[in-house]
Amino acid sequence: MATATLTIDLTALTNNWRALDAMTDCETAAVVKADGYGLGADRVARALANAGARTFFVAATEEAAALRQALGPGPTINIFSGHMAGDTDMISDLHLTPMLNSIDQMLRHVESLPGHPFGIQLDSGMNRLGMEAGEWAALRELAEPQNPTLVMSHLACADEPDHGMNAFQLANFLEMTEDMSTPKSLSATGGILLGKDYHFDMTRPGVGLYGGQPFADAEPVAHVSIPVIQIRDVGPGEAVGYGNTWIAPKDSRIATVAAGYADGLIRAMGAKMQLFHGSTPCPVVGRISMDMIGVDVTHLGEDPKELDILTEDQTVDDLADAAGTIGYEILTSLSARYQRRYTT
Amino acid sequence: MATATLTIDLTALTNNWRALDAMTDCETAAVVKADGYGLGADRVARALANAGARTFFVAATEEAAALRQALGPGPTINIFSGHMAGDTDMISDLHLTPMLNSIDQMLRHVESLPGHPFGIQLDSGMNRLGMEAGEWAALRELAEPQNPTLVMSHLACADEPDHGMNAFQLANFLEMTEDMSTPKSLSATGGILLGKDYHFDMTRPGVGLYGGQPFADAEPVAHVSIPVIQIRDVGPGEAVGYGNTWIAPKDSRIATVAAGYADGLIRAMGAKMQLFHGSTPCPVVGRISMDMIGVDVTHLGEDPKELDILTEDQTVDDLADAAGTIGYEILTSLSARYQRRYTT
Repeated sequence: MATATLTIDLTALTNNWRALDAMTDCETAAVVKADGYGLGADRVARALANAGARTFFVAATEEAAALRQALGPGPTINIFSGHMAGDTDMISDLHLTPMLNSIDQMLRHVESLPGHPFGIQLDSGMNRLGMEAGEWAALRELAEPQNPTLVMSHLACADEPDHGMNAFQLANFLEMTEDMSTPKSLSATGGILLGKDYHFDMTRPGVGLYGGQPFADAEPVAHVSIPVIQIRDVGPGEAVGYGNTWIAPKDSRIATVAAGYADGLIRAMGAKMQLFHGSTPCPVVGRISMDMIGVDVTHLGEDPKELDILTEDQTVDDLADAAGTIGYEILTSLSARYQRRYTT
Repeated sequence: MATATLTIDLTALTNNWRALDAMTDCETAAVVKADGYGLGADRVARALANAGARTFFVAATEEAAALRQALGPGPTINIFSGHMAGDTDMISDLHLTPMLNSIDQMLRHVESLPGHPFGIQLDSGMNRLGMEAGEWAALRELAEPQNPTLVMSHLACADEPDHGMNAFQLANFLEMTEDMSTPKSLSATGGILLGKDYHFDMTRPGVGLYGGQPFADAEPVAHVSIPVIQIRDVGPGEAVGYGNTWIAPKDSRIATVAAGYADGLIRAMGAKMQLFHGSTPCPVVGRISMDMIGVDVTHLGEDPKELDILTEDQTVDDLADAAGTIGYEILTSLSARYQRRYTT
């Protein structure tokens, strides 16, 4: 068994969903795109559905189709990328709901699937997805009588509460949806924390469910433990790993553990992160290889059988800091090679 | 269809294997660990077996078991991490060959599976995997009469031909294997390029098969094309994407394409890489999101339906430079979300 274990705590996941839900008076959906932020959309979504989530969001129609297989016929499955060419049969047969982003998508949808549910995605300033104010003004009279299920937009800077962009996008969204009776949604995890003005009729948390910032009180959901392949003594002056980047300063005991960047342990983290034996940190030595990492275990006083990398002591956001990225990327990088265990 | 396409050119792959094979007079194996460097170990290994490869290497026994299903009973499947606790049944039932790394592994192997094939992995100086000189000296008399199939080691600095570590490891390997009749192997892709002294009886190319450095003449194997979800006009001063990091300097036409860091397009690449419409480069604008990238297509004169990111013009090593990493990590990061197409 030279395969690392990724343990996914479904109780922590549903606790996070309930905690975010308790912050608002509206419906709390769940974003499970990118295979449930890397943790397995099928298991994650079923756990959240059992906890009470009734609406799920994914990025692409292919993800929505897989999710429908996992969830069965009840829950609403919304697609951020909308109704793309080639999606019609899946949207129709599997009762999926595209968030329409443009006049082109609106025409494709109403012509190919008249009467089939859809939502509207508006661009309130991020300039990434959704209809512009002018486009929406031209289309609104046509769209509203067809009873969209949701009108939504997305915040560009919600992780920075003091950023002026938040109020700017809120004002745009309010103006574009004025007098609409359609349910409204503006906020993901960051927006929930911005307060009641940002909640509307539905929030759409993603990263906060999975234990990442900006939801500081999130319970950690993902834990990674890596088996030790071999432990060796190295003397002063001996090099460890590719490129001889680490030279032992003294007699040291070095463990080689069986995971690396092919498991999504981003190479850039290097020695800026640690592995853990219980709560005792063990420094990384040398470069992260594709399938292995060298770890200094000299101070442990015993030879560990495995070492942990994603723990209560070193969260996805700690690893993100080490890699110079964000917790979201740490999660979605976790690869297929893990033995996955789900705990409830 | 808001899913990007990863096209894997199996002809380029087998051409690379043949080109590396033609550089030596010995057997050329193939390293297909980490799911064939992210490109699909089953398809990759079958193509290489059809081209003539008879020996394959993986990192973990679980990978070896999956590979045996793909390849059938003929080829040799060697496991770098050796014989770990819990591996015995798979090694025995699926005729896998562990490269034993330590006295512990040797004892586990000969006690649990007497007579079952094994190889020996020696540490010639990288201090990552394999038996130390002293350990090997104590064990050699016991091991040799049991006819190991291979004695191997691995170079730490083969990508740097002038690094003194190469000659140091070569001398150590020669000394540790002196007078052994067992077939020997020291080199992966980089070592093949170091010349005949490093070839021994078998080479084990990995990254060179998949089109990456240091094999400069490798044909590109992986191509990625991303559908455009939406194209919009933005005016001077408008921001695009998370954190408002890109502000349009003039009237611009911005495409949002349907892939991001959850597809393994490393977030750190940011605007240091480009997308391509045919051979015309299109700058990235704003941050790479989980599922989307903004691209400036103002200069194209038409609205593209898709844009390419991994092409003849922008290779895995170009993307690696943009991300501050190595081509190996670009390959192994390619996620499960792609539509995968194999061409022959």
